[in-house]
Order: sequence, then C-alpha cells, then structure tokens
Amino acid sequence: MSKEVKPVSVPMHPLGGGAEVTSEQEPLCVFGTGDLGRSLGQRLLQTGYKVVYGSRRPLGCGPLPHGAQVMSYADAAQWASVIFVCIHREHYGFMEKLTSQLKGKVLVDVSNNPELNLYPEANAAYLQRLLPGSRVVKAFNTLSAWSLQSGPSDACRQVYVCGNSTEAKQTVGDVATKMGLTVLDRGSLSAAQELEDFPLQLFPEWRLPLQIAVGLTAFFFFYLLTRDVIYAYVDQGKDISFRIMVSLANKVFPIVSLIMLSLCYLPGVLAAFLQLYRGTKYRRFPDWLDRWMLCRKQLGLLALAFAFLHVLYTLLIPIRYYVRFKGWEYVIKQIKENQTTTFDTTVAWRTDSYYSVGILGFGLYVLLGITSLPSVSNALSWREFSYVQSKLGHVTLFLCTLHTFLFGWDKFLRPSTYKWYTPPGYMLSLVVPSVVLALKLLLLLPCVDRSVTRIRRGWERTEPDEEKTLLT
Amino acid sequence: MSKEVKPVSVPMHPLGGGAEVTSEQEPLCVFGTGDLGRSLGQRLLQTGYKVVYGSRRPLGCGPLPHGAQVMSYADAAQWASVIFVCIHREHYGFMEKLTSQLKGKVLVDVSNNPELNLYPEANAAYLQRLLPGSRVVKAFNTLSAWSLQSGPSDACRQVYVCGNSTEAKQTVGDVATKMGLTVLDRGSLSAAQELEDFPLQLFPEWRLPLQIAVGLTAFFFFYLLTRDVIYAYVDQGKDISFRIMVSLANKVFPIVSLIMLSLCYLPGVLAAFLQLYRGTKYRRFPDWLDRWMLCRKQLGLLALAFAFLHVLYTLLIPIRYYVRFKGWEYVIKQIKENQTTTFDTTVAWRTDSYYSVGILGFGLYVLLGITSLPSVSNALSWREFSYVQSKLGHVTLFLCTLHTFLFGWDKFLRPSTYKWYTPPGYMLSLVVPSVVLALKLLLLLPCVDRSVTRIRRGWERTEPDEEKTLLT
Amino acid sequence: MSKEVKPVSVPMHPLGGGAEVTSEQEPLCVFGTGDLGRSLGQRLLQTGYKVVYGSRRPLGCGPLPHGAQVMSYADAAQWASVIFVCIHREHYGFMEKLTSQLKGKVLVDVSNNPELNLYPEANAAYLQRLLPGSRVVKAFNTLSAWSLQSGPSDACRQVYVCGNSTEAKQTVGDVATKMGLTVLDRGSLSAAQELEDFPLQLFPEWRLPLQIAVGLTAFFFFYLLTRDVIYAYVDQGKDISFRIMVSLANKVFPIVSLIMLSLCYLPGVLAAFLQLYRGTKYRRFPDWLDRWMLCRKQLGLLALAFAFLHVLYTLLIPIRYYVRFKGWEYVIKQIKENQTTTFDTTVAWRTDSYYSVGILGFGLYVLLGITSLPSVSNALSWREFSYVQSKLGHVTLFLCTLHTFLFGWDKFLRPSTYKWYTPPGYMLSLVVPSVVLALKLLLLLPCVDRSVTRIRRGWERTEPDEEKTLLT
Repeated sequence: MSKEVKPVSVPMHPLGGGAEVTSEQEPLCVFGTGDLGRSLGQRLLQTGYKVVYGSRRPLGCGPLPHGAQVMSYADAAQWASVIFVCIHREHYGFMEKLTSQLKGKVLVDVSNNPELNLYPEANAAYLQRLLPGSRVVKAFNTLSAWSLQSGPSDACRQVYVCGNSTEAKQTVGDVATKMGLTVLDRGSLSAAQELEDFPLQLFPEWRLPLQIAVGLTAFFFFYLLTRDVIYAYVDQGKDISFRIMVSLANKVFPIVSLIMLSLCYLPGVLAAFLQLYRGTKYRRFPDWLDRWMLCRKQLGLLALAFAFLHVLYTLLIPIRYYVRFKGWEYVIKQIKENQTTTFDTTVAWRTDSYYSVGILGFGLYVLLGITSLPSVSNALSWREFSYVQSKLGHVTLFLCTLHTFLFGWDKFLRPSTYKWYTPPGYMLSLVVPSVVLALKLLLLLPCVDRSVTRIRRGWERTEPDEEKTLLT
Repeated sequence: MSKEVKPVSVPMHPLGGGAEVTSEQEPLCVFGTGDLGRSLGQRLLQTGYKVVYGSRRPLGCGPLPHGAQVMSYADAAQWASVIFVCIHREHYGFMEKLTSQLKGKVLVDVSNNPELNLYPEANAAYLQRLLPGSRVVKAFNTLSAWSLQSGPSDACRQVYVCGNSTEAKQTVGDVATKMGLTVLDRGSLSAAQELEDFPLQLFPEWRLPLQIAVGLTAFFFFYLLTRDVIYAYVDQGKDISFRIMVSLANKVFPIVSLIMLSLCYLPGVLAAFLQLYRGTKYRRFPDWLDRWMLCRKQLGLLALAFAFLHVLYTLLIPIRYYVRFKGWEYVIKQIKENQTTTFDTTVAWRTDSYYSVGILGFGLYVLLGITSLPSVSNALSWREFSYVQSKLGHVTLFLCTLHTFLFGWDKFLRPSTYKWYTPPGYMLSLVVPSVVLALKLLLLLPCVDRSVTRIRRGWERTEPDEEKTLLT
Repeated sequence: MSKEVKPVSVPMHPLGGGAEVTSEQEPLCVFGTGDLGRSLGQRLLQTGYKVVYGSRRPLGCGPLPHGAQVMSYADAAQWASVIFVCIHREHYGFMEKLTSQLKGKVLVDVSNNPELNLYPEANAAYLQRLLPGSRVVKAFNTLSAWSLQSGPSDACRQVYVCGNSTEAKQTVGDVATKMGLTVLDRGSLSAAQELEDFPLQLFPEWRLPLQIAVGLTAFFFFYLLTRDVIYAYVDQGKDISFRIMVSLANKVFPIVSLIMLSLCYLPGVLAAFLQLYRGTKYRRFPDWLDRWMLCRKQLGLLALAFAFLHVLYTLLIPIRYYVRFKGWEYVIKQIKENQTTTFDTTVAWRTDSYYSVGILGFGLYVLLGITSLPSVSNALSWREFSYVQSKLGHVTLFLCTLHTFLFGWDKFLRPSTYKWYTPPGYMLSLVVPSVVLALKLLLLLPCVDRSVTRIRRGWERTEPDEEKTLLT
C-alpha cells in the first residue's frame, strides 16, 4: 500500500526521535497539518526551532516540512509548552479530551473564519472556554499561509497579539520576533473578535468612495442619456443610441473624475476653515469630516482610474467608424456644394490649449498616483509627501478644472446648449471644483494663511485659565 | 608624496588606538577594503560597533569609513573574535598563513562569485577547508554593497545564514539583528552553495513564462506573416511587407496577450477540477501543475505588457501614413464615382462596443498589475488579494475575450476569412480563453461550488480509518 | 460646564491611579498632548508600556489615547525616568523650572522645526543646554505623527538616534525596538542638527536633475520657438503661434527626454573609461562624477515623465482641429486639381518602423521605471537589478535614439531643413545619445570589456610595493 511508503518525515521510532528533540531545546508544537500548519511549521523550522506536529492521522497526513516530527495530538502536546492550533474552529471539540495534557500550556489560536459573523463568539474566546486551564493567545491570524511560507520580506510583517496572560503573550511575541515579524499587543482576549474580523474585511476604506463613484456614474449616465440620446430621439426622431458605448462613456468618466478629485480636496479646505472659525486645532472634527478625510486617498485614486479611462476613450476617438464617417461626409459635402472654410486660429488655440492643459493635468495626476503607492510614499519624508499631495494636488485640480472650462469656452452663454433647460454635464461637474479652488485661494491670502499656520502650530485664540487645574 | 597625506583614518600610533578600542567593547574585524568591505564597515560603525580593517596595504588602501582603523591582516585578526572576510575567493590563499591567529575565530564569508558554477565547491566550504580550526559562517552575501550602505529601509532586510557551529551562527545573527536585518538560519555549511547561487540567479521564475511568450510570439508572427503578407504576394502579387512593422505587430501582441492571460487562469481551474475528482485537497498536485501555478503572476504580467503594447499600437493607427492614405483614397474614389454610403448603425454599435469593452478590460488589467506590485499586495489582507486576483481577474479575462469575439463578429461564418483554409489569428487565440471561461462557469454552478468550497475547507470524501495510527 | 465632563481619561484620583501604575512597571512619560504626543503615547500603549502625560492643563487637554493618565508636568516627570518631549521648541523654557525633577532623567527630544535654519542651534542641543543635568537624546523626529500612529508596516521603520550618553541612547533604542522600529545610532548630540534638518528637506536628490530638465526645456522651447513660429512669421508673414500649445510641446518633450536619458547613462560610461585609464577601481571618482552618478535614477525618471507626455501628445495628434483641417484641405485640393498620388511603400516602411521602434522603446522605458519602484527593486537580486537597469537601459537608449534617427531619415542632408542655418531640435538631441552609444560600443569590444571586468573585480595595473607598510 502506498500509504506506508509515503510519509518520509515520520521516524520509525518516534519516541527515539523525540528523545533527540529534548536534547537541545524544547520544541514548539503545531496542531493540524493543513496548509497553515505546514507553512507555519516550515517557518518555525527555518527560524531554528524544533517542530512537532500533532495530527489526527500521524501516518497519513501527507507531506510535512523536512525535519518536523509528527505524532498524535496527545503525544505532541506533551513535548511542548507552546502549541499552535492550526485547526478549523468546528473541530476544536476534540481538544476537550486533552484538558490534562494542555493544562497551563500556551495555546496560540491562529484560526480564521470563512465569513464574518458566523459565530457569536470569537474562536479564541471559545477555545479558552473549552480549556479554561490553558492560556489562549490569539495571534498570526492576519498572515496568510503563503506569506508565512515566503517570509516577511514579501509580506506584511505585523503580527497582532491578544490574550489574558501577559507572560503567554510575551512567549508568543518572542517567537514572532525571532521569525522576523513585528509584534503589536492588542490587549486582552476580548480583542480577539476584532482580530478575527480583520482578515475577512473586504476593502472597508474603499466602500464609501466606491459608493460615491457608482452613485455619480449612475446619475450622470441617466442625466446625459436623457439629454443626448433621448432628446435627439424625441426632438429629431434620430436613433443615436450607439453613442452610449463610447461618446456617453467619455462624457460620464471625466465628469465623475473631476468631481471626485475635487471631493478629495474639499475636506482639507473645510477643515482649515473650521479651525479658523474655532481658533484652535485641539477640538475634534465632526465625525463626518473625519471619515471624509480618511478616505481622501481612495477618492483620489478612483478619480485617477476614471481619468485614465477618459484618456483612453479620448485617444480612441479618431479610430471610431462614426468619427471617420462624419469626416468623409463633411469633405464630400464641402466638395459637392463647392464650399470653402477658412482656418480659424482661435479655434486652433482654444482646442490645442484645452488638450495641452488636459495632458499636463493627467501627467501630474499620474505622478500623484505613483507617490501614493505604499513603497514610494514610505521613501518620502513627511514634508515631501505633503508637498506632493497638497501643492501638486491642488495644481492638478486647477489644471483639470481649467481643461473643462476651456472645453466649455463660449458655450456657457449659448442658449442652444441648454436642451430641455438642463445644463450639459460638464457644467455641473465644474461646480464643486470651482468652489474648492475659490476656498483654497482664500486660504492662500497672506493674512488667512498666517492665522491657519499659527493654529496648526498649536496656537489657540482663547487660552483657558490655568488655575482650574486640580492637580498640584 | 601624496600617499602619506591621504589616509586620514590611519592613526599614527595604531597600537595606542587599539588600546583605546579594547577599553569599551571588542571590535569587529573586516578583512578587505573593497566596496563591500567599506560598506559593511560603515554600517557596523553606524550600528555602534568598533571596526578594525585588515588590509594588504594598510597605508595605501584608499578612503575608509570615518572612525575605522586599518592594520595588517595578522594584527587586525588579533583584535576581534569575529572576522568578516570581504575578499574575492581567488585571494583566500593568504589566510592559510594566519591559521594560528584565526584559530577558533568566527569567519563570516560574505563572498559571491561572478558566475554560476565557477568552482566545484562553495566559497565558504573552501574557506572552512583552508582553516579547519576556524568556524566559518556564510552570511550577508545576498545583500549588495549598496543596500548595506543605505540601510535596510531601502533594501531587502533578509540575511540568510548557514554554518556548522550553532554558536558562531548565533554570534553573526546577533550582529545582523543589531543592524536591523532579519536573520534566517539555513542550516549547516552544506547550504552555502545554494546561498552563493542565489544572488547570481537571473529571474529564474520568469524563465518559463518568457519562453512561452517568445514561443507564442514567434509562432503567430510566422503564421500571420504567411496568411497576410505572403498570401497577398502569392495571390495578388502585392507587396505589403511594410505592414509587418505595425499591422502585424498589432495582431501578434493582442493574440499572445489573450492566450497568456488565459494560461494564467487555466491552472487554477484545473486544480479545482483535480480536487473535485480526488475529493480531497491533501494530495499534492502533479509537478507540472505546481510549477505552472507558481508562475501565474509572471504569465499575467507578461500578458499585461503585451496588452500595453497592443493599446499603444492601436491608438497610433490613425497617425499612420498608410491609414491616412487609404482614407483619402476612399473619399476621392467616392466623389469621382459619385457614390454615397449610408451610415450603418449596426457597425457603429459593434465597433463602439468592441472598443469600449476593450478599454474597460485593459483598465481592469492595469488594476490587476498594480495590485501585484509587492508594496500594494502587502497592504492587502489575504481575502482582498484573492478577491482582486481571482474575481477581478476572471472578469478581466471575460472582457478581453468578449472584446475579441466582438472584433470577429460575423467573420466567423464568412468563407473568405479562411485564406488557404487557415483561420485568422484571433480565432486561434480564442480557444484557450473560451475553454477557461467555460470551465470556470461550470465551477460557479451552485452544486459544484459547494463541493469545492467544502474540500478547500478540509473536508475529504473518503475519511481514512483512524485506527491505523501506530501511536498511542 | 462641559469642561469637567469631557476628559474621560483623567481618573478622579490621579494619585491612586499613579499608585497602580508603579505596581507593575515604570511608565514612560510624554510631555505635551499635541498630535505627536498623542500618537506617540498611543503607540507606546499598544506596545505594552504605561504612559503618563505631562500637560499645561491636565483637565483641558482634549482627548488622549485610552489608558493613558495625564498630570501636571512636574508630577508626570516624577513617575518616569524616560520623558518624551513632544513640545515645540519655543515652549522649552518652562522646563528650566523643572530642573530638579528632570535631573538625571533621559529626555527624548522628538521636535522638528517648521523651516530650515530657523535657529542657530539644534533643538536637542538647546534642550541639553537648558537642562545640563538631564541626558538628552534626539530621536523619532524623522517619523510623522501619522506613521507613528499607523505602525511601522505603513511607514519608514528607521529611527535615527543621537546623544551624548550611551546608556540613554540604549534605553531609547530599546523602546524603539519594542515598537518594531529599527534603530540607527548617529553618534553624539552634535549630529542633532543633521537629524533635525532631515525631515525638512524637500527632494534634495531631485534638485539637480530638475534644474537640468528645466534648463533644457527652456533652451529648446526658445530655440524651437525661434526656428518654427518666429521664422514663419518673419519669412512668410504667417501667424502659427497656436502651434506652441501642442506641436512645439511635442517637439520639446521628446528632445529633453532623449537627452536626459542619455545623461543618465553617460556617467557610467565615463566612469568605466576613467577606471580603464587609471587602471584601478580603488581611487575615488572626481566629485562631479560622483554626484552625477548619484542622481542617475532621478534623471531617468524625469526623462520617463517627458517621454510619457510625448506619447500622450503624439497619440492626440489626429484629434487636433489643425490636423483634421489640413487633411480635409489636402483631399479637397487633390480633387479640385484632379491630382493623383501613389502610395509610397518606402514612406510606409519608414514611418511604421519609426512608430514601432518608438513604442517598443517606450515599453522598455516603462519597464525600467517600474523596476525602480522601491518595492520592486527590493524584490530583485543585485544581479537582476543591474541586468535590468544596465542592459535593458542601454537597449532602451538605443531604441529611442534609433527612433529619432528614423524620424530624421533623409532630412539630415536636405539644405531646406536648416532654417536660418540652425539644425532642427531633434538633430541637436541626437548628439549626446550617439556619443554615449558609441562609447558603450567601445566598452563592449571583447578586449576592452575584459580589462574593465578585471579592474572591477579588484585587479590593479600597478601593484604598490607591500614593504612600505609601517605595521608589523
């Protein structure tokens, strides 16, 4: 039978092997031989620890890292005082039978659930309840099996640890430090729920910006669908529905992009005015402003994605069948009707400026995106980062707004622009950026700027009297 | 003579300086004053160690880090118990003369060879053979002189260590830890060969994907050359060889890109079916599948590079002389023959959809590329990473495949498409993606999906009986 | 009054709370409850320390991290032997009154100034002068409040420490290590000025490359303005000033890009020739060459930015009003004058090759840019990095130069090209790249290559005699 042949890593006389284990240093024990158990064991071995696996089926548990031993759960538990529990929560039950062997030992719960809110109680809290005599520590669950295996240089280095016993946390923290990881203590076992929820979160900080993006896209899509396609059908009986795919998309994307870019700089401006009004920086911002400021990066990156699509759609224009057809039609009509048009230098200036400003704005925008990559922003000093994100950011907003104004040009004043008394989409998109730029300009006035800087350095308009202090 | 003036860091009375050295703490010794020796010494000094250099020519060895001393090899060896050997292997010979001075000392071999397989024996093993009384440790060789100098924040932090003496490795590991590096023990000196090969490897994980890319590119280039250029020459006597540079390239690149993107998702689908068939996830995949799965990232990134070129080539189309000429020719012919063509809404819908789907696919593709940057993927939780790479990845594959189908449209049924009875390149490129998408669709069926999920959580179809266990 | 209600973190009986503090472990003290003080305190609490804040107004200092206590400065100082001074320099004065309480304590100066060269003396040196009985250590000032709060995985991990007392530095270093940071000792307090300047620097390594870029851009802008716009006005009386926005920009950008790319490879070539001439690699390069080599990355990235703009401007060409107008005009003229032009295969070959080479060059260029992202270059071995940056870099330079030569084609020999006896901009841009490529080609000759490799491995042409050595 192939079973007997395969498990190379199981010594024929496991107790003899175990005897050798004790000779140098106490081994660590890993319960469970799944992906996580194997990866964790391999890393522990690489770090220089001896590893003993506990398994349901010591002889049939598949390939294990070279150098590890495998035994029954009960045997393995006896060799070590620290046991990593790499087992799914639903199988925890069997450990109740090992209560005596696990008494006083440090149990490291590394488990994660497949979904949020599957159980009313954190896995680690449940394990502690099953085995009140052991000292349960929640740790390592935020690392993937893969990142454990490939080592910290390729993965997040932070390990969150919580547990009720300080010494047990210290023991586990020492192991993690030796593995090259950074330990952050998150307090007692009551924090386990939070740690277990962490790896299940799906882009929580992107949720609000994504909702804004989807909302704006949907609104402007239907707004422009009505103004362009439906209006043409109702008013002139023409079916230009094919324009949805490219023309309409290339109107919606830049509009949403510009609005989101300005939404990314609005909270900073509002915060400055709030600080000016309050005369201090030591009072908390309202919650909505706080949350808004925390998702500025996400707003900006989504806006960049929309701007990227806008660029691609724009550059594609001359390839389109519709555009080429219109060009030919125009030429043929001109020849047949023997018309001549003269070159209009103003139009050339306007359109070329509009393109050029747009390209420069997009170039700066890409630069902002690159500097917000984690590895790039880490290489910048704080002052450099804020220079790029604030100064260059506002210049980008200015260029993109100017690009849109140049696009509009004199259409703002033409009545024919306002079909069904509604303004075109790009005019709507200019409202927020113009407000942000105007407010920012106000803040740049020397007198206002001086006040804001003074407040940001800790100055307060009304100093409370020091005598109120109760303490000496 | 300028020689006497230059070496500022050499004290006039080196022994007096040495006496001062011992007062506080034993210095570390560095043999060799080349780039690596200097950089290493500088870092050791910054970390707070005292450093003594051993040199062939203590007075003429060029500028050394400020604060270091320099002596002859024999003298330097006496001051320290840890000696970093920053010397090329071919010069190791002289150390045999220092056998007595180096006895019992820890020699850290940091050398690398200029080429793979230059010597039959690892440098560190050779050094140990030369000096059997010393304790040789291989370490630091995977760091460049530059990364040593600029500190770990700008470079890989991992130091691999191997050697026969545990205490010697511990000593070296402590130094590395103090320098802010992470130590990984790779066992005995027999691992030195592997460590020495590591920095000489040239993208080993890119080799297979690159070969696939080159193979596919070559095949499709000659296939399309035959079908397009040679066919036109043979059949109509026309020389359209100029089309090789842009038109042909812009056919080959998207074809290769799509095939490679689908090759990147095929192994995951195959693995799921294999697990379904076997009813367990605990059996190893065949080797070829394992290797395939390990190079998925590289396959995907190469496919993205080809897609990027395809986008640039496509956007360039309307600038081309050939394309502009054809446009003018068409208009002139229409006018001369007094023809009129009417605008075909179906064509407009089809081409615009085709462009739009392609742009959205490329946008998602770029997003996938960005999230596979090390610093971005590290900032994602495991669930977020797999969401992006798996869900968004399959959506990308779907959009790109749809883009190609829309490009083909009704040409699949036209006999004139099949010149010399061969299908056009894009039809061939659709085979693998269609298979991958069909299989993925099968896996998404509720009943199949449930089985796969159950297996991935550790369930097995046939539980082996637990009684076979030998232990306890 | 709301004041009494708010400060949740102030215990009603602070001394009782303080008594509890001493029970386990000595707390750390933080002076100042501003942003930095709060963030630092929060991290210290997370790391497992107890934290006592010293404040001007213990009851009115706003929200503090949960678990921290707040007292008057004098009280807080008594509880701890390590005090983090998170206060602006201009408020340091009050600490003189606490001389007795702070005697012998470790004061960690984390302050930064708002501007460079604001004070003649470093903040930490000033603090030491105020309190000669305390042991001042400068540390943590290079981290932002934000990076302290979010933990090291999202921020630079390096902490620079300097101070006159070795033990005080050790104590502070231990705290930093526990926080998961890497400590680099920068020596005595005289280094404080340098550490305080560091976070105020604004891209120092970008200054020279940016100056070069601005200088080249300005020169070529005015050169081409004269040759194109002014010449047309003077010579033919035509106003083509609208061409400044796109046509001129799209001439200046590629020219500057190509020159800067070649400037990025020139110093490497010069260095090789210098080493060949000197016959050794152990003599320092002249200062200007050293500085040049250190800004190669920045030169290359700026050149990439210009190339990116060039690509966008080029792809935009067919959308431009001017270009479309010229196309229509051409067709209309042809029809009216009943001319026929024949398709010129040479032109098609030349232009298509020129585009294709440009696209491939740009593709490689983007690849070079991606591999210079910190997280990507860290994942490469030293050999891989130098392979990409050197080999692929020179291929990129070759392709971009070839692209420009193909653009010029036979115009080099046409007298009409040289308006006002000046060559067009692209010809000027070819000088430096051609020189670099020619020199590089020389270095690739087998005999030259062998010498360079030998020198780089440490060989020297003239071995100095070993007898000069003074030491033993």
